[in-house]
Amino acid sequence: MSKHAAGPEIQRMIDLIARLPGLGPRSARRAALFLLKRQEALLRPLAEAFADAADRIERCDQCGNLDTQQPCGICRAGERDDGVICVVEDVPDLWALERAGVFRGRYHVLGGVMSALDGVGPEDLTIGLLVERVRDTAPREVILALNATVDGQTTAHYIADQLEGTVSNVSRLAHGVPVGGELDYLDEGTLATALRSRRGV
Amino acid sequence: MSKHAAGPEIQRMIDLIARLPGLGPRSARRAALFLLKRQEALLRPLAEAFADAADRIERCDQCGNLDTQQPCGICRAGERDDGVICVVEDVPDLWALERAGVFRGRYHVLGGVMSALDGVGPEDLTIGLLVERVRDTAPREVILALNATVDGQTTAHYIADQLEGTVSNVSRLAHGVPVGGELDYLDEGTLATALRSRRGV
Repeated sequence: MSKHAAGPEIQRMIDLIARLPGLGPRSARRAALFLLKRQEALLRPLAEAFADAADRIERCDQCGNLDTQQPCGICRAGERDDGVICVVEDVPDLWALERAGVFRGRYHVLGGVMSALDGVGPEDLTIGLLVERVRDTAPREVILALNATVDGQTTAHYIADQLEGTVSNVSRLAHGVPVGGELDYLDEGTLATALRSRRGV
Repeated sequence: MSKHAAGPEIQRMIDLIARLPGLGPRSARRAALFLLKRQEALLRPLAEAFADAADRIERCDQCGNLDTQQPCGICRAGERDDGVICVVEDVPDLWALERAGVFRGRYHVLGGVMSALDGVGPEDLTIGLLVERVRDTAPREVILALNATVDGQTTAHYIADQLEGTVSNVSRLAHGVPVGGELDYLDEGTLATALRSRRGV
């Protein structure tokens, strides 16, 4: 018996699971055992879902979303407003906005943000595609729904610069107190912005 | 768009991943996206490894280990000592002992421990099978390598009672200071046991 006591098939499973974000070798072993105890209830359905996803899901050429259709379901949806494009960092942000259920326009997924530290430049993102898309489709508004991080905001500024002259209305999400949030737990920056942007009741 | 914005195929993936231990809906979404960005490098290999495991891995009828062979590789290994059976709670404990690389006997996997709280009785574990196996194969020694938890120790006592008269030598793992451990971080029970079980140098 080698250092890998689990047999090559199980060890291969564990090694692959351990590559998922947030899972180390120990939790990967735990997850593998959990799956092996539920072969028909969970392991096989997962195998099928993963194979299906690997076969069928691709990036939308138009907006960068992930879907089984090309272009994606949101780009195809006839009832959505072509006049507004919401720019997001990545697909989970798109999912988050869709869960909020108030945005009825189209999306543009950048595939990340510019980051000097990680060596991600504008050419690594779909910014060129966005500028082209805005020029071609002439939307009324582009919403830069990027994360309120340094990299997110740097990217937002860069995109706003690139869009100069192509669209009159470029907006960003409001900063403020999260719904259900307690002031005591908020950082000063958020509080200051919330105070400056106060609204009449 | 519904509350599930990710499309049915991706949502199915997320829902299944979220059932793994230690993963909530948020980390499942993160893992799904991570996989979808690595379709050929990770998603498809995982699908194949899971399908392979679901097809081929089963519990060893003899010892309860998980393997692609029946009986398992450890039960078949000719060079191992039939005279010692090491009883463990579950397969990860067997893996841990194999990684330690000092035990050359056979194993018996209980499939859990007795737990009044979780309603797990001796009949839910492979204790009957163990007693039968010990009676049939007459090993020199049975090592109860159960976890040092209340349930683990209760189970160990129960098994020792059941084995009464079938094997002369029933042992348990030593308690003490973990190798590399600092006394300051140890609980009093472990320290007291380590002190009582001290050895000459």
